[in-house]
Order: sequence, then structure tokens, then C-alpha cells
Amino acid sequence: MANAEKTEWGLKLNRVRRNEMKAGEGRVTIKTTLQMLRANAAINSDDQRPLIPMAHGDPSPFPSFRAATAAVDSVVDALRSARFNGYCANSGLLPARKLLIKLTKSGEFSYLPNFLSGIYGRAVAEYISRDLPFKLSADDVHLTAGGKQAIHAVISSLAHPNTNILLPRPGYSTYDAAAALSQLEVRHYDLVPEKGWEVDLDSAKASADDNTVAIVAETARKLGLLVISDEVYDHITFGSKPFIRMGAFASRVPVVTLGSMSKRWMVPGWRLGWLVSTDPNGFLQKSGLLERVKAFFEVASDPVTFVQAALPEIIEKTEEGFFPKIIDVLRQDADIIFEKLKGIPHITCPNKPEGSMFMMVKLNMDIFGGIQDDIDFCVKLAKEEKVMVLPGSTLGAKNWLRITFGLEPSILEEALQRIKAFCERNTRKPL
Amino acid sequence: MANAEKTEWGLKLNRVRRNEMKAGEGRVTIKTTLQMLRANAAINSDDQRPLIPMAHGDPSPFPSFRAATAAVDSVVDALRSARFNGYCANSGLLPARKLLIKLTKSGEFSYLPNFLSGIYGRAVAEYISRDLPFKLSADDVHLTAGGKQAIHAVISSLAHPNTNILLPRPGYSTYDAAAALSQLEVRHYDLVPEKGWEVDLDSAKASADDNTVAIVAETARKLGLLVISDEVYDHITFGSKPFIRMGAFASRVPVVTLGSMSKRWMVPGWRLGWLVSTDPNGFLQKSGLLERVKAFFEVASDPVTFVQAALPEIIEKTEEGFFPKIIDVLRQDADIIFEKLKGIPHITCPNKPEGSMFMMVKLNMDIFGGIQDDIDFCVKLAKEEKVMVLPGSTLGAKNWLRITFGLEPSILEEALQRIKAFCERNTRKPL
Repeated sequence: MANAEKTEWGLKLNRVRRNEMKAGEGRVTIKTTLQMLRANAAINSDDQRPLIPMAHGDPSPFPSFRAATAAVDSVVDALRSARFNGYCANSGLLPARKLLIKLTKSGEFSYLPNFLSGIYGRAVAEYISRDLPFKLSADDVHLTAGGKQAIHAVISSLAHPNTNILLPRPGYSTYDAAAALSQLEVRHYDLVPEKGWEVDLDSAKASADDNTVAIVAETARKLGLLVISDEVYDHITFGSKPFIRMGAFASRVPVVTLGSMSKRWMVPGWRLGWLVSTDPNGFLQKSGLLERVKAFFEVASDPVTFVQAALPEIIEKTEEGFFPKIIDVLRQDADIIFEKLKGIPHITCPNKPEGSMFMMVKLNMDIFGGIQDDIDFCVKLAKEEKVMVLPGSTLGAKNWLRITFGLEPSILEEALQRIKAFCERNTRKPL
Repeated sequence: MANAEKTEWGLKLNRVRRNEMKAGEGRVTIKTTLQMLRANAAINSDDQRPLIPMAHGDPSPFPSFRAATAAVDSVVDALRSARFNGYCANSGLLPARKLLIKLTKSGEFSYLPNFLSGIYGRAVAEYISRDLPFKLSADDVHLTAGGKQAIHAVISSLAHPNTNILLPRPGYSTYDAAAALSQLEVRHYDLVPEKGWEVDLDSAKASADDNTVAIVAETARKLGLLVISDEVYDHITFGSKPFIRMGAFASRVPVVTLGSMSKRWMVPGWRLGWLVSTDPNGFLQKSGLLERVKAFFEVASDPVTFVQAALPEIIEKTEEGFFPKIIDVLRQDADIIFEKLKGIPHITCPNKPEGSMFMMVKLNMDIFGGIQDDIDFCVKLAKEEKVMVLPGSTLGAKNWLRITFGLEPSILEEALQRIKAFCERNTRKPL
């Protein structure tokens, strides 16, 4: 009896396997890669040096990047008030005139909202509008559980059979993972390191066809596509070029902007982001995309209510000196890593970084001895030097590395010494 | 030129519409229904009485259901510590020996984890294990952004062409919305009000076929199906029957348990839930389902780090009197609503509630005059009496209502007076 039952279970559940449901297989996300590198960094328990995390963008543990006091206070106040422990009422508190309700013949009602907004969306609309030639409203904003949920929402909403999306290479692998989960075909176009990572327009055009629904790049207008503009690093610039929102061009191309508090306020663990449509010509609305986005958020989890409730105050009250101080440290970090890498012939750095907290560098494989490729490099570096950097393969760039330099400057210097020692140890011996 | 461009946009984006991507259309979730009822309750601006929310389960605004002080303190401490502003390291901090890494021929690595756990999953494993005849480990747990994300995860992981899921009617519409989003076919089986909402076994058996992947009920074993056990109301019982976890039967049926802090700790806005597999025979692992769940969580947003970090302390330190006090108020509420509804002939209440904070009651349509159906009842009740109750249609039960009685007892009495007055006003006149 027990055996018969087991067989029956096996049959029913194997259906899952038979029908190729293993969407995750063969894809490696940053999260998985980090787990793998951490495991390697932990193997040598005799190595008492601290682990240096340069494989993902989270400077929040370092003193120079500590969250703004006003932001923390705002969240504590919202929590202590006991007013925001419940579900977020979301758009329900907007004026009733915004709601169009009709009873259908069958007696079922349908609900025709023309907005995405939560009650705190207005704060984000005002924040984004500061950098735009026109003013967004709360109706254009959906608050999300971090930037990642915004990615999941827009990719899932675009996906259906026989459509594809153009993504940059190197790019951010969460887009690829979300597309795989939603069974949306991905086509890549190249970014050119020698031209400061500009889009290779020919490669983008060659990838697009009539089934292409979206692209994450400036080439969209030329190709007649929707732009998904990932602006989680908004205002994190410290070179000669200013930060410009893609939404500024929304009169020419419909733009969906993704953003979050994570990077600018140094609180990625608070999980508050946004999906903002900038669409003065109403194309996104007409296309049905915003309706799909709304359907996604009916199922997806809301951000934490008391963090949402704190958002307007956080935007308003963050200390004046907070952002410039962060930018200064990042500029100092960029100087350090660019200068120090010059002294390591194994690694080529095409550009000095002018924004964000990452840089892409190339491994000169012909100089290395005993290193197979970028993954091998990263695994051994983690194991032998307790330094984690991201293999470029994770982002579609084999034998490149993505290095996060958003660290305490003294720790960054220590990391670069370890990387140099590792490279020197792994140099090809002359014949 | 501008027109030509517009036409091109229209073409590209209309693809979305042409291909029937409007997953949300024709479905009404609780969230949408609440928005609609709130809008109606706000129409009469002369009515100064407070809105009484009985359409969803969130007693957190009421003094009798205020969150435990220890829980709030634990979250504030985690936030103030500045140690949990970053991304959650998740399973990365588990001992390295748990990770199996292999380099494939192509040089890509694949990562073979046999677990779902985050570093705080252990606290949930211990919490759930208190009620089980065997002990779960952190490996069986995935922390989620509220119970809703756990639903999204399991439904999305089960979905693929030509499969279906059995859901109870009346049930919780987020399951239906998640299935629609994932294009998983839903088949309903009935719960029988006259038998205390027991499963109609014949209806369940009739709905299942070889393509059925899961069911949310006790009938699973007989049908040879996976059980999804939604236990967000764990321990919220105040009648004669004790709460029993479905996982207690996991040696006979593989069980995926969904739960959260929301209802027991009265903090639905904190968005912390869990997905727990109880699968001593290893069927879920073998079927590939857990791999799919993992792929979902690589894309989905994590719960807020500092709330996760507070969880072990919350479970350990919540004041001893907190839970019994909540149960006492709910028992008192159940007594009030059951007694008061007896005095309203328009509404039949088949059972006195013994758990959760909801009850299903039937509208006797032949007594009403000028009320079309349950939706009409709820819309007019919101508009005229500022009382929100959920139309049964939202849950698949036409001309029923779902009423939340988890309110401050004095407010519950006030609500029932308003409902009674409304019903009396809308009685069919004798010919």
C-alpha cells in the first residue's frame, strides 16, 4: 500500500519534470554566483582576514556609506506610530472621482482604473519630476518591493509567446532571469567598452524584429520600441557627465523607469522601489501594458507599509550633506581602483568610472598561468584571498570581471593589494 | 514625422493588446473590490460616521489588536543597529559544506543546492515544528515577502501548459489571480456550508484529472495530489476544534505550507511570510518543484532585511499574554456577530465561526427589495452605511457575503446595527 502510494505520487509530480518546468536550469543569477563565491571564501578556515565583498553593490555595511539618520528616524517613527502595521490601503485613499465603476450585464462589476498609484506614489512622482521637463503625478507611479520587483513586473507584463526583448551585453542578469521565468525570448545587443560602453547600434538593430516588445537603451526611438530605463543609480555620478533621466525624452519614446531607494540612500535591504511610466502620448496606456502591470501587482506583494509611509519624509528630510558625502567617497574609490589597476598588467581597465559603483575590467588571459577563465579566476580569488568579484560570464561578458568599488577606501586598497598578489602568483611562466 | 512616429509606436505596442495579454481582465481580486467599495463609501461626504472595514482581514488598526511591543522593539532594534540595511545574504551564510559546486565542461558552473533556506529560516522551521510530529530544518523554509508572495511562488512554480489546479469555492481569490497571471487552469471544488464548510469530496474528485498538479485541501491524499496548505491563520482558533497543521500528514502526502506573521502577530504590513516544504519522502525535491520555487525566488524580491533579522527574537520574545488576549477578543467578536445576525432574517449564518476572523453568510434574496445581488448589496451598504463587506462573488459564492469580524467589539456592534438598518430599509414590500 505504502509503495503503491509512493508510485502514484511519483507519477503525478514527475509531470512537473516531464514538461520542462525547470526554468532556472542553465542560468546563473548574481544571487547564485554570490552564494558560490561566499562558499569558496569560507573554505580556508585558517585565513583570518576579513572577506572583502566586491561582487555586488551594497556599500551599506561600511561606515562611509551609513544610511542617513533622518531616513532611519522616519522609518522608526512610522513603525512606532502603530498606524502602519496593516495592509497598505494603496490607491484606495485617492479621491473617489478617480474611480470609474460599471456594472456589467451579468451583474459582475468591472473596474476601470487609469492609474497605478499608491498613496505614497506622489512623493516619488515629485522626486522624479525634479529632473524632468514636465511633471509626473501619483497616477504614473507604482511603488514596488525594491527595484527587483519592478523588473519582475515589467518583464512579466511584456512576456507572451512569440515576443522578444533586447537586453544589453554586459547587462544585469536579473532581467535575463525574469525573462526566463516568464518565457520571454531575450536577444542581446553589445555595449562597446572602447567607446565608454556606448550601445553598438548595428548590433541592436540586427537583433530587433517585428516581435520585439522592448529594449533597455537609447536606441529605442530609432527602432520604434518601448524603453525600460533602469535608474537605480540615479544621481550617482562623479565624472564630467551629468545624470539625465531617460524620461526626459518621453515625448519621443514611451519610457518605463525603474528605480529604488537602495543605492542613493544606501538601504538596499529596505526593499522600496518604483515603476514609473513616462508616457505623455499615452502609448503605454493604449497598448494595454499598464493594465498588465496592474494585474501583476494585484498578485505581487506590496512593499512594507511603514517603509512606504516613511518615504515622503525620507525624500524631504534627508540631511543636505548626505548625498555629496557619498559621491565624494565614491569618486575617491574610483580614483583608487583606476590607479591601482594600472599597476596590474593582468587586468585592463578601459574607462575610469564616472558613475554607479561598478566597473567592468578585462582579464588578459595570455598573461595568466593556471587560470582557466573568469569564473576560475573568481573562484580561486575568493578561496585564496577572500576577495569576491563577479565573473563577467554572469553578465554575458566572458573573461571580464565586474568589480564593485563602493567600499570603505582603506578596505578597497587592501582588496587591490590582494588582487595584485593573486595575479602575480598566477602569471604564466616563460618557456 | 511626428505622426509617422506615433503610428509606428502604436503598431509595436498594440502587439501587446493583439495577443490577448490582458490577464487581469474579467477577474476581480479582493484588492480591486476593496478599492471599489472604498470609493463608494467616500461618495456621501455628508456622512461623518467612521468607515467600518469588514471586507478584509486587518484588525491591526484597532486597540485590542495592537502589535506586540516586543515585536515592534525587535524590528526597531534591528533597524537602529545599522547591520541590516543591506541585501540579505540569504543562504550564503550557511556552512560552506552545504554547497555543492561543479564546473561543467563548457567552463560554466552550475550550482546544486538542496535547500531553500535563508539564514533566518531556522526560526520558522522551529516555529512550525512545534506543531509537527517531526522536526523541520532551515533547508525546508523560504522566507517570503508576506503570505501573498508565497502564493505567487508556488502557483507560478506549478504552472505550465496543460496543467490545472483544484481550488476551493469559496476560496481566496489571490490563488485565482496568481493562476491567471501564470496561465494555470483553475478547477473549483465546493465547500459545503451545511457541513461546516467541509470539502465536497465528489466535486473534488470530479474536477481532478491526469493534468492536475495540486489541490488546497485534505482530499489530496485520496486523489494522489500535492497539498498546498494555507496556514496564515495558524493558531487562530477559539471553538472546540484545535488547530492542526497539514504538515502533520506529510508522511502520507507531500505538503507545501504557506504562512506569515500577518495574522497571528497582527502585522500584515510587515510583509514577512514563509513557504515551507514538508516532504519526508522527498517527492517535491524529486519532482523538480523545489528547483522551480528557487528559480522564482532568484527573481522575486526578498523580504525586508531588518524585519527578517528581527524574526527569531519576535518568535522567542513575544509577551506570553499576547496570543491568548487576541484569541479572547476574537471569541467575543464571534459571539457578537453570531447573535446579532440571528436578529436579521435577510441574512443566514450557517455556522458559528470557530477560527480565523471571517465568516461566510448567505443573503436571502427573496426577502430583499431593490437589491439585485451580493455586489449590489455591498456597493449600496458601503455608500449608505459606510460599512464594507466582501461580495461572495469575489470568492466564487454568488449572493453570499464574507464578513470580517476581527474588529474592536464596540465597533463590531455598531457595524451590525448599521447592517440591520440597511436590510430593514431594503425589505420587499408585500403585494
